[in-house]
Amino acid sequence: MTHFADRLNNLIRERGTPLCLGLDPRWESLPVALRSKFDDSPDGRAAAYLSFCSRVLDLVGLRVPVVKPQAAFFEACGPAGFAAMRSLIAQAKQMGVITILDGKRNDIASTATAYAESAFDLWGADSLTVNPYLGRDAVEPFVMAARAKSGGVFVLVRTSNPGAGLFQDLRCDGQPLYRHVGDRVAEWTRANLGSQGWGDVGAVVGATYPDELAQLREALPEVIFLVPGFGAQGGTAADVRAAFRSDGLGAVINSSRGILFPFMPNAADWETRIVKATEDTIGVLAFG
Amino acid sequence: MTHFADRLNNLIRERGTPLCLGLDPRWESLPVALRSKFDDSPDGRAAAYLSFCSRVLDLVGLRVPVVKPQAAFFEACGPAGFAAMRSLIAQAKQMGVITILDGKRNDIASTATAYAESAFDLWGADSLTVNPYLGRDAVEPFVMAARAKSGGVFVLVRTSNPGAGLFQDLRCDGQPLYRHVGDRVAEWTRANLGSQGWGDVGAVVGATYPDELAQLREALPEVIFLVPGFGAQGGTAADVRAAFRSDGLGAVINSSRGILFPFMPNAADWETRIVKATEDTIGVLAFG
Repeated sequence: MTHFADRLNNLIRERGTPLCLGLDPRWESLPVALRSKFDDSPDGRAAAYLSFCSRVLDLVGLRVPVVKPQAAFFEACGPAGFAAMRSLIAQAKQMGVITILDGKRNDIASTATAYAESAFDLWGADSLTVNPYLGRDAVEPFVMAARAKSGGVFVLVRTSNPGAGLFQDLRCDGQPLYRHVGDRVAEWTRANLGSQGWGDVGAVVGATYPDELAQLREALPEVIFLVPGFGAQGGTAADVRAAFRSDGLGAVINSSRGILFPFMPNAADWETRIVKATEDTIGVLAFG
Repeated sequence: MTHFADRLNNLIRERGTPLCLGLDPRWESLPVALRSKFDDSPDGRAAAYLSFCSRVLDLVGLRVPVVKPQAAFFEACGPAGFAAMRSLIAQAKQMGVITILDGKRNDIASTATAYAESAFDLWGADSLTVNPYLGRDAVEPFVMAARAKSGGVFVLVRTSNPGAGLFQDLRCDGQPLYRHVGDRVAEWTRANLGSQGWGDVGAVVGATYPDELAQLREALPEVIFLVPGFGAQGGTAADVRAAFRSDGLGAVINSSRGILFPFMPNAADWETRIVKATEDTIGVLAFG
C-alpha cells in the first residue's frame, strides 16, 4: 500500500487544498431544523451528530483531502457515539478522504497498542493523534501499529491553546520542551520516509503560535504538520503560511467550527452556508 | 457530598489497605473455561470482559477501596466495550468502591470538558487520569468538572514505563520536567483541601522509580499518589513504601495483572487464585 505521506500529499494536490475538515459536533450549535428530530439523551445526541456530520460530508467531503473526527464529542454520547464515529469514518473513506482520529490517546506498551489497534482496525481511521508525555515506549507502539497499516501518527508538539506554554515552553538544556519533542518526532519519521521525502510521523503545531510554527518548519523538514487553531481560535491564513515548505506541501490546516457552524442554529440555509464556508476557506488557504 | 480525598482515605482505613484493583482485561489471559463461552469478535470480547471482571468484583470487590478500569482495553471492543465498562463501574460503586477511570484523556477547553463530563456523568466514575502536556487550560477543565461532583483527578507526573524519562527527565530551569508538573499539581490541589489536609488533584507516580517517588512524596505533602508499576512491572513493596506519609496515608497502589491473572488460562481454580492473590497483595502492602 502507498506510504501515508505520499497518499496524503497526492490527495492534497488532487483536491487543490490542504484543508482538514474537523468534525467537532456540538448539540447546542446544531441546526434547530435537524436537532428537533432527536431527543436530548446520549443516544439521541449520537444520532443527531451522525445525521449532521454525514450531511456535512455529503456536502463538502469531496472538496477536502482530510477529515478529523474529534473523539471527545462522540465519547460524550456513550456507546452509540462511538458507533456514529465509526460510520462517519467509513463514509469519509468511501469519499476518498484521509481520516485523522483526534483522540490524543497515550499509554504504555501493550495498552498503547490496544488504543492503536482500536483506531486502525475497529474505528477504521488512517491516522491518529498521540500525546508524547509518557515517552519513547508510549509513542513507538502507535508508530509501529500505524506502519503496519501504511497509516500515520500526529504527535502533539506545540498545541494551539492559550495555556499551552505552561510545560511546552519550559527551557530544557537550552531549548523549549516542545523543540525536544519535535526532534524526537523527526527521528521517528526519518525511519520511514515516503517517495516524496516526507515521513509518516507528523506533528501537531498550532496556528496560534506563528513564530514557533516557522521555527519548527525549518527544524523539521520531513515532518508533516497538522495545524489546529486556524479560524475560530484566532490563527489567520498569514499565520499558517509558515507551516508549508516552499513547494506548498508539508501541512494540513484544520478548521472545525468555521466550517461546521457558520450559521445561527435557527438559520434555514445552513447547508448553503456550510458549502460557502468551505469554499471560502479553501480560497483563503490558496497561497500560490 | 464528602470531599474526594476524605472519602478515599476513609475507605482505605475502613478496608485496611491502599490496594487499587486495576481492571485491564486481556483476551489471551482469560480463563479458558470462561473465554470459550464467547466468540473472538469485538462484541464477544466485550461480553467476556464484562463476565470476567464482574466475577472478579464479586470475589474481591469488598476487600479493596479502589478499582481502576483501563479504558484502552474496553475501547478496543468498540461500542459494546464501553457499555461493559459502564456496567463494571456501576457494580464497583454498588460495592462501595471508589473508581478511577484510567483513560489519560487530554484536550483543551470545551473538548476537555466533554471528556470530563463523559467520565463523571456517563461512565459514572469518581475520578479519572489526565495527561498534562497541553498545559493549564487543558488540565483545569477536568479539575473543575471533578470538583462539581466531589470527584478527583490524577495527573500523570512520573510514569512507570522504562521510556518515561525521554521527556519527563529533561532538566528545565534546574529541575526535571516531572517536578515542574508535580509543582503545578500541588498548586491545583491546594485550592481544595479536604478535612484531613489532602487535595482532590492527585499525581500518578510509578513504583518503578522509588527515588523519584520518595522525593515527590516530600515535595508534595497534600497530593495523593496513584502508584502504578507495582508487581508485574517490577515495583516491590519496599519501593512503594515511600509513597506514604508517616501516618500511612497518601497513596493508592495499583495492581492489575498480579490480581487479575495469577493463573495459566487453563487453570480450573482461577477464582481461588484471584482471591489468594488479592489477600497476598494486601498482606504485602500492610506496612504496620
